[in-house]
Amino acid sequence: MPQTSASATPSGAAPDAPVTAPVTAAVIVIGNEILSGRTRDANLPYLANRLNELGIRLAEARVVRDETAAIVAAVNELRLRCDYVFTSGGIGPTHDDITAAAVAEAFGTVLERNAEAVRRLEDHYEPGQLNAARLTMADLPVGAALIDNPVSAAPGFRLGNVYVLAGVPVILQAMFETLAGGLAGGAPMVSRTVSSYLTEGTVANAVAAVQRAHPEVEIGSYPFLRRGRLGTSLVVRGPDPGRVDAAAEALIAVVRTLGGEPLAEPVDPIGG
Amino acid sequence: MPQTSASATPSGAAPDAPVTAPVTAAVIVIGNEILSGRTRDANLPYLANRLNELGIRLAEARVVRDETAAIVAAVNELRLRCDYVFTSGGIGPTHDDITAAAVAEAFGTVLERNAEAVRRLEDHYEPGQLNAARLTMADLPVGAALIDNPVSAAPGFRLGNVYVLAGVPVILQAMFETLAGGLAGGAPMVSRTVSSYLTEGTVANAVAAVQRAHPEVEIGSYPFLRRGRLGTSLVVRGPDPGRVDAAAEALIAVVRTLGGEPLAEPVDPIGG
Repeated sequence: MPQTSASATPSGAAPDAPVTAPVTAAVIVIGNEILSGRTRDANLPYLANRLNELGIRLAEARVVRDETAAIVAAVNELRLRCDYVFTSGGIGPTHDDITAAAVAEAFGTVLERNAEAVRRLEDHYEPGQLNAARLTMADLPVGAALIDNPVSAAPGFRLGNVYVLAGVPVILQAMFETLAGGLAGGAPMVSRTVSSYLTEGTVANAVAAVQRAHPEVEIGSYPFLRRGRLGTSLVVRGPDPGRVDAAAEALIAVVRTLGGEPLAEPVDPIGG
Repeated sequence: MPQTSASATPSGAAPDAPVTAPVTAAVIVIGNEILSGRTRDANLPYLANRLNELGIRLAEARVVRDETAAIVAAVNELRLRCDYVFTSGGIGPTHDDITAAAVAEAFGTVLERNAEAVRRLEDHYEPGQLNAARLTMADLPVGAALIDNPVSAAPGFRLGNVYVLAGVPVILQAMFETLAGGLAGGAPMVSRTVSSYLTEGTVANAVAAVQRAHPEVEIGSYPFLRRGRLGTSLVVRGPDPGRVDAAAEALIAVVRTLGGEPLAEPVDPIGG
């Protein structure tokens, strides 16, 4: 599935320096409880961090309601655009667990009772506990491949490039880790942060110039407020540690030239 | 903008009970730092909670990269589908602050230097501090209306039904609160939670029956793990407290019938 395409090399690039398209992913968090503000999602931060470590670029994330049409639309838009799609939530035995049916619909297929999923449920439950409601968890899209669930019995599955995971964070994480070794990523992104008490408006032009001179890294600028003082964290990210370091050193020089001093302990960007 | 349409009454509904379409919103969080896992977003939980309090239904949320095409696509898809769209991030003076230009492009218009925004920046900065980079924050889409920013100088703005807010949570929150009184919402949603140590598979069928008998509320089912025991939190939500109570009482009866006991302190659903 992941596209590592030497054919994407721009004309003019040296043949010994093929450009590799980044491997990309999208996350779809399914659940009204997140959108109502009642529950704070923990799965997006986890997946974002792990995908980054695996060298997979998280291109977009969505939070959608427990509604078939919303899930179908998000799955179909993102699975065509990204190498991997991970969904979280909606695979339990209750009436609001509609993810499997929605993913089947997105792929133009239907649910069938998956024999291997039934077998695993039978292993998991005490005799007599595997009732009709629990058995519905084994109704998976035709063609689905089971994802191991080391924690509970709810079957996650893969269909095409869409990985359907549980919503409970501890289960989602365990499921993801059974997959992680098999995902095709690129070089992990590394980052360095340069923080100072210079404000964004002071550093903006010089930082833009550093970004232009170092196009192979991504420089983000994030204001912070600390001990009553405004400052800026400049975050350099890229797959090549040497290039990240070079850009970070250029930013340190910029800060000093403008009369600032890089903080010994960088300030992490704050939420949002 | 908000559509409260008596014309949406389904045929057959009593004429004295007009159906009001819920007022809906979408949130677009803009920022690579969220997608890289480096920063945990705080703006979506805040907006989700406040919109819920205002009786506005958050229909979807997206996190997109600091890329014009990604922002344009999200803005254009969601502004046609929802009454309100709120964006977070990307309105500062640095090279990665591209939200205003992207929103202009989404609306088929261009940026112009906004005289009132310039005036407010001049008020905010000490003489000599309003440099060229900071002035670019006053370049807003033609037709934009300023949103007050009680914290810093970065101008947020409204264009059509799209509200462009800062990414720093304290600033986003202050901006949102200047708007909140003017947003047309519906009845605030209220909720009740019934938690017990019955598992989802045990309660699933009976809860589905309660949902069918109480279609005017939304019942969510969320497993939890507490002190080594699995349980289920059933969350009833709706705009009418009486109907929410009636459904919650029905769920309490279900739990007792199945041999469980509602916990005195409900367990909040966990993330994801």
